Amino acid sequence: MPKPERYVEKVIIIGSGPAGWTAAIYAARANLEPLVLAGRPKTIPTTLLPGGQLMLTTEVENYPGFPHGVMGPDLMSAFEQQAVRFHTRIVTDNGFTPNVADANDGHSYAYHDCKSVDFSKRPFVVVGEDDVEYLAHSVIVATGATANWMGLPNEQRLAQTGGGVSACAVCDGALPIFRGKVLGVVGGGDSAVEEASYLTKFASKVYMIHRRHELRASKIMVERATSNPKIEFAWNKVVTDVLGDKMISGVRLQDTQTKKESTLELGGLFMAIGHTPATEFLVGQLELDAKKYIKLADPYRSTTSVEGVFAAGDCVDSVYRQAVTAAGMGCKAAIDAERWLAEHVGH
Amino acid sequence: MPKPERYVEKVIIIGSGPAGWTAAIYAARANLEPLVLAGRPKTIPTTLLPGGQLMLTTEVENYPGFPHGVMGPDLMSAFEQQAVRFHTRIVTDNGFTPNVADANDGHSYAYHDCKSVDFSKRPFVVVGEDDVEYLAHSVIVATGATANWMGLPNEQRLAQTGGGVSACAVCDGALPIFRGKVLGVVGGGDSAVEEASYLTKFASKVYMIHRRHELRASKIMVERATSNPKIEFAWNKVVTDVLGDKMISGVRLQDTQTKKESTLELGGLFMAIGHTPATEFLVGQLELDAKKYIKLADPYRSTTSVEGVFAAGDCVDSVYRQAVTAAGMGCKAAIDAERWLAEHVGH
Repeated sequence: MPKPERYVEKVIIIGSGPAGWTAAIYAARANLEPLVLAGRPKTIPTTLLPGGQLMLTTEVENYPGFPHGVMGPDLMSAFEQQAVRFHTRIVTDNGFTPNVADANDGHSYAYHDCKSVDFSKRPFVVVGEDDVEYLAHSVIVATGATANWMGLPNEQRLAQTGGGVSACAVCDGALPIFRGKVLGVVGGGDSAVEEASYLTKFASKVYMIHRRHELRASKIMVERATSNPKIEFAWNKVVTDVLGDKMISGVRLQDTQTKKESTLELGGLFMAIGHTPATEFLVGQLELDAKKYIKLADPYRSTTSVEGVFAAGDCVDSVYRQAVTAAGMGCKAAIDAERWLAEHVGH
Repeated sequence: MPKPERYVEKVIIIGSGPAGWTAAIYAARANLEPLVLAGRPKTIPTTLLPGGQLMLTTEVENYPGFPHGVMGPDLMSAFEQQAVRFHTRIVTDNGFTPNVADANDGHSYAYHDCKSVDFSKRPFVVVGEDDVEYLAHSVIVATGATANWMGLPNEQRLAQTGGGVSACAVCDGALPIFRGKVLGVVGGGDSAVEEASYLTKFASKVYMIHRRHELRASKIMVERATSNPKIEFAWNKVVTDVLGDKMISGVRLQDTQTKKESTLELGGLFMAIGHTPATEFLVGQLELDAKKYIKLADPYRSTTSVEGVFAAGDCVDSVYRQAVTAAGMGCKAAIDAERWLAEHVGH
C-alpha cells in the first residue's frame, strides 16, 4: 500500500440516514474516528439529504424503542448526537465538526455532500464539495434511496406536513388519520399492489390510480388486486393536482386518453412509483444491479464488489426500506469495516 | 388447507428480544394481531428469557436513537410497550394480555414459554406451557441465543450489575470503566481473538485466558493475536473464581497441567467461549446449520426451510448479535409474514 503524506482516514461514511449514523455510532465506539459526508439537500449528483428520508416524515410509530412514537427529524437528530458523542466527525462548511451543539441545532445544512469516489486504488479517494479530496482505508456507503414522487407542489407540501400524502404504506398506513378512509395509491407495479393490499387493512376503499389501462404487476399480484373487494381501479389516469389545505381532500385527475379532467375524493394518497437509489456517483466504481442498487458480495454481510468498501441501508435494499432495517445494516457495515481494518491495516 | 374449528392465529411470534418485539410492532401495525410466546427464564427446553439478552445488561450505548444511552431492561420494556400499543397479545398465566400496564410492570415473569412446535402441517401447531396448543397460519421464530458463561456465581453477579464482566466486547468494550485497564478474555477461538483485538483499542493490555497451550483460532487470527503487542497469553489456565465486590478486581486461575492456583489482576473480563442458539426445540422442524443456528432459505429475507415460517435475530445470526441488527431482522420477518399471508391466506 502506498504511503501518502496526507492523512488517511480509517473509515469514511457517505450518508447520514439511519444506516449512516448507525455505522458512525459503531465505528466511533470502535475508536475508528469515522468521518461523515452527510450530504446536502438538492445537491447534484447524489442529492443526499442530511438525515435521510425520515427528515421528510412527521411521526414515526414503528422505530422500536419509542412506544409513543417519535418525530422523524427528532429521531435522526438523536442518531446524529449519539454518533457525535463518540467522536464522529462531520464535514461542514466550517471544517470538521465534533460538536454536539452544532449537531443538535436542527441541521444547519452546512454539511458537505460527496461528489465522486475513486475505489480503483488504495487508499480510496472520496471527493467532497469544492473538490476537496479525502483519503480513506475503508468506506461505508449509506447514501439511501429517494421515493419517486409526482413532483406536484401540493403533493410535496402535504407530504412534509403530515397532510395525508406518503410514499410508504408500511410506515404510515396504520396511522389513525387513514383509518376507515378512502385512499389512493399511485402506481401499477408489484409494489403498488402490495401497498394497496396492505392499505385495505385500514381503509374503507383503496383506489389504484394508474396511467395505463392495465397493471404492470406480475400475474399473481394482479390477481390479488382484482380479487380484493376493497380495491378499485382508476385506469388511464394521472394526478394533476393534490387538493386540500392542511389535510388532503382529494386529487385532480386527467384521463390519459380523453384528456378529460375529474376529481376523486380521498382521505390519503400513497406514492408507489418506485424508488431511486442515490448511487449515480458509484457507476463504474461498485457493482450495481439493474436498478442501480449496490450489489453485496455476501448477502449476509455488508461487503461489496470492492474489498474495503461496505454498503448499508436503502442504497442496498429495494425491499424493506425501514429505518430499523437500515440501522441494522449500518451496524453490520461498521463491524465488518472494523474487522477488515484490523486484518488489513492494523491497529 | 384444513379448516379446524379452533381459532387459527395469523401469526405467532416465539421470543421477546429485540427481534421478537420488533416483529410484533410491525405485525401489529399490519393488523395481524400477533400472539407472542415471550418465554420464561430457566424454562426447559428453550430457556427463553423474556426481553432477551439485553435484560442481563446494564447501560446500552449503541442502540441508535438514545444519545445518552439507555438501560437494557428499559429499552426492552419500551419495545414491549410499543408492540402492545398496537394490540400485540402476550400469553401469560392470566390469559392473553393486551394491557400496557401489565406489560410495563417490569416483567412479572408470568409469560409463557414455547415447549415445542409442529411445522409439518398447516395450520402450524405451537405448544406452550401446560401443553396448551396454539394454531397459526404463520410463525416468526425469534428465540435468540445465549452467550456461554463459565457458570461461576461471582461471574454472574458481576455481569448482571455492571461490575466489569461481559460477554460482548463490541457492546461493552468502549465503556469508560474499561479504558486503560488490564482486561481478560476467556476463550481461544476466532471470536476470542476478534474480541481481544477489539479490546486493545481501549485497554492497556489484554490477557487471553485459554485452557490449552495454543489457540483454536484460524492461522490468520493467531497471527493477529500474537503480533499485537497489547495481547498477552495465559496458557493452560481456567478461571475458578471472579474476584471483586462491586467491580471486578481480578480472577483466580488454575493451571490445567500443574493444578497450581494463581491470581491475575484485571479491570474487566470478557467471555468469548461461544453462544448457544435457543433452537433445540426446532430440531427436525426447521433446517439448522452445524451450530444449530436457523438456516435462511434466502439470505436477503427471513424465510426458512418451511414456507410460512420466518426467523429473525440471534437464533439466525452468529456474527453480529446486536440489538439493532436483531431488530432489523424482526422487521423483515414481519413484513415477509404479512406478504406471505396476503398471498396464501387472504386478507
